[in-house]
Amino acid sequence: MTQIRTPGPLDALFAPRGIAIVGASRNPAKLGAAMARSLGGFTAVGGHLALVNGRDDTMYPSIGAASADGPVDLAVLCVPAAACAAILAEAADAGVRAALVCGGGFAEVAGGQGAEHQRRLTEIARATGIRVLGPNTSGFLVPGAHLTASFVPGTSRVPSGGIAVVAASGGVNHALAFALAEAGHGISLAVGLGNGADVTAPDVLDHLADDPDTTAVALHVETVADGPRLIAAVRRLTARRPVVALVVGRSDVGAFAASHTGALATSWRTTRAALAQAGAVLVGDERELVDAVGALAVTRARAVADPGVGVVTAQAGPGLLLLDNLQGRSIAVPELTGHTQDELAALLPPLTYQRNPVDTGRPGPAMGGVLRAVGADPGVDVIAAYALHEPGAVDLVAAARAGRTDGVPLVLGLGGTGDAVTRDRDALRAAGIAATGDPAGVAAATAALVADARARSTGGDGPAAPGTAVEVADAYDEGQAKDLLDHLGIATMPRRCCATRSAAHEAFDALGGGDGDGADRGVRPVAAKLLDAAVLHKTEIGGVHLGITSHQALDAALDRLEAAGARRYLIEAMAPPGIDLIVGARRDPVFGPVVLIGLGGTVAEALADVAVRLAPLSVDEASGMPSELSGRALLAGWRGGPVLAPRALGEIVASLGGLLAANPLIDEIEINPLRLTHSGLIALDAVILTRKAGDAHPDR
Amino acid sequence: MTQIRTPGPLDALFAPRGIAIVGASRNPAKLGAAMARSLGGFTAVGGHLALVNGRDDTMYPSIGAASADGPVDLAVLCVPAAACAAILAEAADAGVRAALVCGGGFAEVAGGQGAEHQRRLTEIARATGIRVLGPNTSGFLVPGAHLTASFVPGTSRVPSGGIAVVAASGGVNHALAFALAEAGHGISLAVGLGNGADVTAPDVLDHLADDPDTTAVALHVETVADGPRLIAAVRRLTARRPVVALVVGRSDVGAFAASHTGALATSWRTTRAALAQAGAVLVGDERELVDAVGALAVTRARAVADPGVGVVTAQAGPGLLLLDNLQGRSIAVPELTGHTQDELAALLPPLTYQRNPVDTGRPGPAMGGVLRAVGADPGVDVIAAYALHEPGAVDLVAAARAGRTDGVPLVLGLGGTGDAVTRDRDALRAAGIAATGDPAGVAAATAALVADARARSTGGDGPAAPGTAVEVADAYDEGQAKDLLDHLGIATMPRRCCATRSAAHEAFDALGGGDGDGADRGVRPVAAKLLDAAVLHKTEIGGVHLGITSHQALDAALDRLEAAGARRYLIEAMAPPGIDLIVGARRDPVFGPVVLIGLGGTVAEALADVAVRLAPLSVDEASGMPSELSGRALLAGWRGGPVLAPRALGEIVASLGGLLAANPLIDEIEINPLRLTHSGLIALDAVILTRKAGDAHPDR
Repeated sequence: MTQIRTPGPLDALFAPRGIAIVGASRNPAKLGAAMARSLGGFTAVGGHLALVNGRDDTMYPSIGAASADGPVDLAVLCVPAAACAAILAEAADAGVRAALVCGGGFAEVAGGQGAEHQRRLTEIARATGIRVLGPNTSGFLVPGAHLTASFVPGTSRVPSGGIAVVAASGGVNHALAFALAEAGHGISLAVGLGNGADVTAPDVLDHLADDPDTTAVALHVETVADGPRLIAAVRRLTARRPVVALVVGRSDVGAFAASHTGALATSWRTTRAALAQAGAVLVGDERELVDAVGALAVTRARAVADPGVGVVTAQAGPGLLLLDNLQGRSIAVPELTGHTQDELAALLPPLTYQRNPVDTGRPGPAMGGVLRAVGADPGVDVIAAYALHEPGAVDLVAAARAGRTDGVPLVLGLGGTGDAVTRDRDALRAAGIAATGDPAGVAAATAALVADARARSTGGDGPAAPGTAVEVADAYDEGQAKDLLDHLGIATMPRRCCATRSAAHEAFDALGGGDGDGADRGVRPVAAKLLDAAVLHKTEIGGVHLGITSHQALDAALDRLEAAGARRYLIEAMAPPGIDLIVGARRDPVFGPVVLIGLGGTVAEALADVAVRLAPLSVDEASGMPSELSGRALLAGWRGGPVLAPRALGEIVASLGGLLAANPLIDEIEINPLRLTHSGLIALDAVILTRKAGDAHPDR
Repeated sequence: MTQIRTPGPLDALFAPRGIAIVGASRNPAKLGAAMARSLGGFTAVGGHLALVNGRDDTMYPSIGAASADGPVDLAVLCVPAAACAAILAEAADAGVRAALVCGGGFAEVAGGQGAEHQRRLTEIARATGIRVLGPNTSGFLVPGAHLTASFVPGTSRVPSGGIAVVAASGGVNHALAFALAEAGHGISLAVGLGNGADVTAPDVLDHLADDPDTTAVALHVETVADGPRLIAAVRRLTARRPVVALVVGRSDVGAFAASHTGALATSWRTTRAALAQAGAVLVGDERELVDAVGALAVTRARAVADPGVGVVTAQAGPGLLLLDNLQGRSIAVPELTGHTQDELAALLPPLTYQRNPVDTGRPGPAMGGVLRAVGADPGVDVIAAYALHEPGAVDLVAAARAGRTDGVPLVLGLGGTGDAVTRDRDALRAAGIAATGDPAGVAAATAALVADARARSTGGDGPAAPGTAVEVADAYDEGQAKDLLDHLGIATMPRRCCATRSAAHEAFDALGGGDGDGADRGVRPVAAKLLDAAVLHKTEIGGVHLGITSHQALDAALDRLEAAGARRYLIEAMAPPGIDLIVGARRDPVFGPVVLIGLGGTVAEALADVAVRLAPLSVDEASGMPSELSGRALLAGWRGGPVLAPRALGEIVASLGGLLAANPLIDEIEINPLRLTHSGLIALDAVILTRKAGDAHPDR
């Protein structure tokens, strides 16, 4: 761990010169004994390890005494929850700059003294500057420094390498470290945050941005206390190293999650969207996490918006599994150019499939040339390859090395079992080739390289669309809300707000061109709606009447609006048919202003098919949102329907986001529906919710 | 391989007394040499292995000569494609009863002689009764008999065990065998079918139904040649052993797939539905396949319709990953009874979560009791557990053994790395406990046990709804189609078919109760539609007019219908509002009659959110279809809307399926929409497509 860099605030924790175990024990079943066993390796490489126990005269009586024999940067507290605060204060007094508290009995426990014990830890950390990891965690490990601050046996077998793990939970930290080790990957630092009384994920992520031993970061998120701080830390880190994030909470795990962390779970979807926007690669489960971070630790693709993948396989069947998996992830596998196909035809037997995927037939010495030809294809940014381990037919390590193209990463699944296979996978990784075992692993690793390339290609977009400060009204009726949309440059239909029935009839003549008999002689139909800022759901109470083509029908509609309580009316030209969307901006309790889009209608709503981003955001960023919708095919000219210009939608979404960001008194704005027509996007209804100036919360 | 059973038709292939390698070679790079190396283990256990090469006088000159020295049941052909047919005939003449043809150059190759070479192989197999595996496959392995008929090195390291692999592709067969071995599972038989010139998946599945060494089957499907035969074989096999199926082709992999197998890919969705209906457990990728078949090889849950899972975890964070994964798969994790919670409270520290999931806090000797208490809960059919490997804290193998409840399988994820962990996982499996390493693996294994239990619970349903033979018309207009629905007992709205305008006005008076002025005085609106069996898409040409409440409006509608070419009119009462569904039955080119349901509307259509089953089918089976729709929440009283009675829909779907099964001249019937209202399900439109008697194809 020879490093030349400015010491960081967590160096005392993760790179201590000396460690004191307070509450060390000779009873092997005690935590203090388990910690002493685990940390034994630290002394073997010359670290100062002091056992402290005032009731055991074979040990140091106090941290102060331990410090006299060598520097103690880190105190590992193996004492009951109630005793931790006093020991922590003593440690800080003795010059110790970091502490690990593994035990439970703090804020994760409902009722009792737990929350108070944790509050006191936090208070002492704030007051003295000592940094505290935990409580309620199984600890951390730095294999490169032989530093295993964990009571879980076997942890010292985790090999050193370039992957850092930052897990909300100590158990998940260990599960991930073990899974990475089993898959052949090494660890630079693996941390379980536990209750996060002092050290939280952003602290560790900031530390890793300066850690020369870390080449990629695996982030496990359960709950988010401070959204903007987490996102800022992820953004800083992704500018330097790839980050892969696994967010728990797809389904409703609230009750158990709260019992575990003492915090309420925030929105899974919003947390994922925020992390992706900050440049992290998202995965669905811990297996994908291993594949993704394992690949990104050794290689990255060029920053391009839609990377193409070249698939090369020595066996057709596994290649088909790989292709199916990649396409199921909406990853492009473009047909190779004629030039590339000509090159391949010269290398391969004539009868294999060579357009992409490239089936090499029986593996042989042509493999290196095939990889080189595919890597040189202008449409290929990543190569995903699979081969059974057949060293007699081809030396895949040599072929993969020889076949490399600068800037085009190779993911190679090497199928087989036994030590020779493991050794070859290790050799591939050492050469900067992402090695795994099965087609699903190749697909997950390739997807991570693609997602990382996409994230970096948008990371350089222009700045967030600036929001305009407006004079915020106490309340908005539909007419006022649409006036604000007009101000933002969002199209609406011609309309009039009418205080009387006669004004409504005049509006009908002006907007509908009606002549009163409802016959089909070129009358343009109008809508008549109840106009009242206090009524949010007009349709449900009979406050919306559509397709009015005669004064008679208008009168009937006005009768019903009056019956529904209307005193004012909105008369509006009807929009052409199209596909209805919902777009809006609101304030997330954890992340602050967010924007979202979805398809209109109950099916889309029942499926919760929406895309989310933090606001403010750039038009480029917002323009990428429709491609995330499951029902996006509807926006691409479905059955002759209109085709969405993503940028036009992006401008609307970005302006709504900017509006919320610039105007703390606006709580929410929703356009529902925003109709996609052959003439563009038109807002058909809009709701704006505000708060009184005195009630404004900090804009976060 | 001591077996007492009737010899099966594939015993010569998979349990030969002697093997001849035809085209054996002393050149180590040749296929004939690789095969001889692989099959060396067979001689070591006393099998007769004969090397045949007429041009090498150290070998047998012919199969006949080889047979003279001992029985030869299996010939492994290592000769060029063009030479295979003659050798196969020679083998059959010599009394050989099975052959393996690994080489390519047959029907998988477009153009050239390949298809003809394969046709001749098939012809000789049919004529002589010799069974042929391949061509174009890397072979098969029977580890328990030390029989490695594969040229892929390392295959002989795959351990013997209870799992059979039946893969469409030789490469996938090896990839799966290696992945199972890496995960600690053993193999009874692993077969790659290749081109399937003679031996196909149903043959091998039939063989496995009688194989006492096989406890679970992994089936990999690329294309299906004979749907009914495959499904019959799967059904027979699942009655005896669990089958887990992985179907390729979620995305459009057609071009590459066709090049690989020489066959067109059939519908992924229909193939999956058919396999599930036959009792197979479906998985999404090869990793889930390993977890699923690994679990089902050692344990099965009780056959119940909606199994409940008890989650037990020694570490909260991984338990949360597990819970999230299970709930994301719509698996029930019910709250434990008060009695169970009382028992747990007596075993565990007071402050852990114990309602389900059960968090044991620090693992300790209570683990066995906790598993027993959870297993005894009446709502628990499977236990999914996770713990880091901490032998100092608890012996999990002993605890899991002691904590077993009869009939309640346990899946245990044992996190850690190293030989001690591997040994403990092996010990768990030997005790009938499904062992894996990570929460994702526990979830996949648990999901497989749950799916298998569900499949067996519906397997005993009543017989398929009998179809009624009807007199099939050459063509059906909407009125005739609805008459047939009436005959099937499917609700429609009151209607009249009208040949004249005056008849239409009379119908309006009768159905709408209209008085002619269109004012809102209790008139029930009617629909007027073009009535013509030749017009399938009425709406697009202006053939449908809704909400008619006056004779004047009816005249306008009739004018437009005439303009659209109508000579006859359907006047129909309008249905109440509700949620629109699409239900239908059609003929799949591979599987024969199928039924499908989906939600109405373009969003559902764009998402292809449909459920499919083979027909004929029981009402019970059909009643399970709505629960597969992503948008199923819409059918469960969404925002005060109507609630679907699944059985009512099941009866309709089963009757449509029976109709197609019993009437070969009906090609397709679709009800679109079938509206779910507060008064039940009502068919609003229906289309029936027929074929002329002379054109009828076999009903498949």
